[in-house]
Amino acid sequence: MSTSSDSNSLSDADSNGALNEIHHVVIAVGNVSKAVEWYTKHFHCDHFRCDIEYHDETRALFVFGNTRLALVPPKQHPPHIGFIHPQAESFGELKLHRDGTRSCYVADPAGNAVEVLALIGTS
Amino acid sequence: MSTSSDSNSLSDADSNGALNEIHHVVIAVGNVSKAVEWYTKHFHCDHFRCDIEYHDETRALFVFGNTRLALVPPKQHPPHIGFIHPQAESFGELKLHRDGTRSCYVADPAGNAVEVLALIGTS
Repeated sequence: MSTSSDSNSLSDADSNGALNEIHHVVIAVGNVSKAVEWYTKHFHCDHFRCDIEYHDETRALFVFGNTRLALVPPKQHPPHIGFIHPQAESFGELKLHRDGTRSCYVADPAGNAVEVLALIGTS
Repeated sequence: MSTSSDSNSLSDADSNGALNEIHHVVIAVGNVSKAVEWYTKHFHCDHFRCDIEYHDETRALFVFGNTRLALVPPKQHPPHIGFIHPQAESFGELKLHRDGTRSCYVADPAGNAVEVLALIGTS
């Protein structure tokens, strides 16, 4: 995990005024099913106020109106924020994930894990 | 901080199909200025890819395309996610903040802090 990248300057084409988006936020929960039950009840995922994209004992992904929330056991993934970035590859080699996204992980100066994702739909 | 709420059932009027939104995400950073510099550089807040709503030595708020990221020193606020909820008041007494939002804090079953905000523009 690198804390810096010197080569991610934007071309004029990338500076199109569209703001970068936060693709997802990942938080750690000891018991995924218990947490899913809590978020489902309190944020009315059963009343069409958020969607559960998937859920098993090792991970859950909620889709809210503007971004996604993933729940994972503490040792599976570090809690992190995933940002979509037009030059994600400048942060490191991108890994292809099962959901079709491509990303790499870096750390901010405080040591927080940051996932940098390529624009969805790019190869 | 309470871990449960039994009175936040939705009325038909609230079940309008609009998904709840994640208003902001707060992460802890030891040195706010250093972190602001890093996020500004890497997410091109100086190239119109995100905005800095405010920044001093104790807090910073970035506005991304779909949600907000706040950076705070570890002891000022717990890291948390702030959700907009149509019945935020059912989670507890709402406190009015300087930015005009009203919210309360609860904890999910894993102990993660969760801020529940009233719909923006409601009194």
